[in-house]
Amino acid sequence: MPLTSRPTEMTSPLLWRDLCVFDGHQTLPEPMAVVVADGRIVQLTPMTAFDASDLEHYQDMGSGGVMTPGLVDCHTHLVFGGSRADEYEARLEGVSYEEIARRGGGILSTVNATRSATEDELYATAKPRLEALIADGVTTVEIKSGYGLDVDNELKMLRVARRLGENLPVRVMTTLLGAHALPPEYRDNSDGYIDLVCDEMIPRAASEGLADAVDVFCEKIAFSVAQCERVFRAALAHGLPIKAHAEQLSNLGGTAMAAGLGALSADHIEYLDAHGIDAMRKAGSVAVILPGAFLTLRETQRPPIAGLREAGVPMAVATDANPGSSPMFMPTLMLNLACTLFQLTPREALSGMTANAASALGQPSLGRIQEGAPADLCVWDIHSPAELAYAVQPGRLRQRIFHGGLSA
Amino acid sequence: MPLTSRPTEMTSPLLWRDLCVFDGHQTLPEPMAVVVADGRIVQLTPMTAFDASDLEHYQDMGSGGVMTPGLVDCHTHLVFGGSRADEYEARLEGVSYEEIARRGGGILSTVNATRSATEDELYATAKPRLEALIADGVTTVEIKSGYGLDVDNELKMLRVARRLGENLPVRVMTTLLGAHALPPEYRDNSDGYIDLVCDEMIPRAASEGLADAVDVFCEKIAFSVAQCERVFRAALAHGLPIKAHAEQLSNLGGTAMAAGLGALSADHIEYLDAHGIDAMRKAGSVAVILPGAFLTLRETQRPPIAGLREAGVPMAVATDANPGSSPMFMPTLMLNLACTLFQLTPREALSGMTANAASALGQPSLGRIQEGAPADLCVWDIHSPAELAYAVQPGRLRQRIFHGGLSA
Ligand SMILES: [Zn+2]
Ligand SMILES: [Zn+2]
Repeated sequence: MPLTSRPTEMTSPLLWRDLCVFDGHQTLPEPMAVVVADGRIVQLTPMTAFDASDLEHYQDMGSGGVMTPGLVDCHTHLVFGGSRADEYEARLEGVSYEEIARRGGGILSTVNATRSATEDELYATAKPRLEALIADGVTTVEIKSGYGLDVDNELKMLRVARRLGENLPVRVMTTLLGAHALPPEYRDNSDGYIDLVCDEMIPRAASEGLADAVDVFCEKIAFSVAQCERVFRAALAHGLPIKAHAEQLSNLGGTAMAAGLGALSADHIEYLDAHGIDAMRKAGSVAVILPGAFLTLRETQRPPIAGLREAGVPMAVATDANPGSSPMFMPTLMLNLACTLFQLTPREALSGMTANAASALGQPSLGRIQEGAPADLCVWDIHSPAELAYAVQPGRLRQRIFHGGLSA
Repeated sequence: MPLTSRPTEMTSPLLWRDLCVFDGHQTLPEPMAVVVADGRIVQLTPMTAFDASDLEHYQDMGSGGVMTPGLVDCHTHLVFGGSRADEYEARLEGVSYEEIARRGGGILSTVNATRSATEDELYATAKPRLEALIADGVTTVEIKSGYGLDVDNELKMLRVARRLGENLPVRVMTTLLGAHALPPEYRDNSDGYIDLVCDEMIPRAASEGLADAVDVFCEKIAFSVAQCERVFRAALAHGLPIKAHAEQLSNLGGTAMAAGLGALSADHIEYLDAHGIDAMRKAGSVAVILPGAFLTLRETQRPPIAGLREAGVPMAVATDANPGSSPMFMPTLMLNLACTLFQLTPREALSGMTANAASALGQPSLGRIQEGAPADLCVWDIHSPAELAYAVQPGRLRQRIFHGGLSA
């Protein structure tokens, strides 16, 4: 009998009182009581309707503050070898891009460092990055491969991502991003590399259960729309959902192609046009906005927020945490940047890191506060949900509940 | 006898080994040993020259990592009443500036909330903001008044700032910013308000020992160069050093005037011209760069970094933490933004939040790692000082030493 096999204090439901609740889509109009038991939200009730006659039945978790779903960071490259701080410094000290490339800088420096790192080394360096996200309220995170660029090293990255999810109090969704960049071994044979991704990486990642989705970088400096489509068809054939880095630096049409195949999301999309927006709307794809990369790259072309909003395409916001274009490991900062740089409303930004981000991961039961949903929750020492986007201020996370248990 | 009046373990010197040291101006070329005793740095020695024969004499504080001076945030408005999150949200939801002003928004809403708050209330709301700075490595912070705009309320703000410094492990430098905005009572009589600042606020703040400096907002929407000069002359007559918010929105010449009177710093200075740079150079004033406000206001005019660099004007970087134009309570983020938005080098940004920021506060013994200096120090879990500016990642502060003692 489950109820007698555990001590009473472990099964008594957790109760929060007088919360301002942002449920993933909106701020509820009344102060709420929230009850959690067995890893799920079992009650979400206005305080005025809450039966307080039986308070000793609960474990009191406190009152006041703002409750949001645990944050969902739906686009990261958290696992990588080496650091690009030296390259960052050299560029700011006036060293040219050519000279940095000559010194072996850029993404290939991360590929080299990732390939030469052991699984344990990659785990040890990724762990504090993930802990920074967790300390900022993340309960679900997507982690991509993409710096291995051969079968063994891509699978190595995915195994590290899985291990992070097993050992830390966070849900990790893994994404195979073999088609991230062309490895030097295939310099003049990008179709040959796509063959490798389709014929070996995807089947291996699928059969070993290492990937929850497949991603591509569809761009002039990476892979063509036709090449990305081949990758997607291979992924779908193995039962893996798809998503794309697309329309970041130019308008190639990768988003429309991806949406046409039912992509979960198209990410970056600074150069997305009306045709692409329409394709996303029809497919129900999520637009993942990445203000950290926009800021770091000093981009000036903004994603078509007004058009996405008008079309009703759901928008997510993520860190894009990576060593090159977005070395930023702070989700709540992205809420602020999405509002400041792209004029999202605080409500849109918060939905973008809760409900819509969960949808972008194909996990629509996450990122929401509703009865029956998994209890991944944050309680913040603030007065209104908008404050999370308004002020950049670490240290406001009062409680973080993962799978129904307090873990921060 | 001091040495016998304290137990031995309290007087045994603290030793750090194998540190990469950024001394406030540069990264030292060799791994260093640092010894702290009686609140001061008593030894700064290359490991190769360190006498390790006597290790039991020390308290071992660990080895490796990067040591920097404790961060110095030389420009904040940390004490204020109310929140502007609602206004921020309304603006992003499309409410016009006029309508927000009609609803009582803008700086005057902060003035009203600050005036109606008690000293205890202001203290209680400022404390977590200051704790966020401390958790990010700050050991010295400047806090301005400027939301009281009458004698009693300006002095109230300064008393709160002093009290924060007495109760938390951080040095607080207070600044009277009576000439921040025109209070409604003086709507048609700005010279009359300047009289109040000069004839009552400054004398009271000086005689009660509440202000370490006097600041002004020299701008079309605030006070003229002539009015600011009157404030400065009153401050100097009372022995208080001066500084200015100047050239933020237009080029009025406030910086040159302030420098001509020996100002410690001119802050913002997006619109500073060559004449102003030259005046700063001659006066030895520090240029305080505030990327948080630049970002939040979506400003496009950048401060003249190249000109300042060429002239040898020292540059500082600060949060400008305030409820309107820079609700950002994270100094290390400003290092990143100064590099990304203004192309400072990581070395310049770090000097800007250590040695140069201390100079901007008239405290040149702070913000430096050198023998004899006060032991306000940070040890970071990173490999090179540039990483602090490169990556935005809370949680990398391993140890924070304030006045020779571990406090974070
Ligand atoms: Zn990415
Ligand atoms: Zn200011």
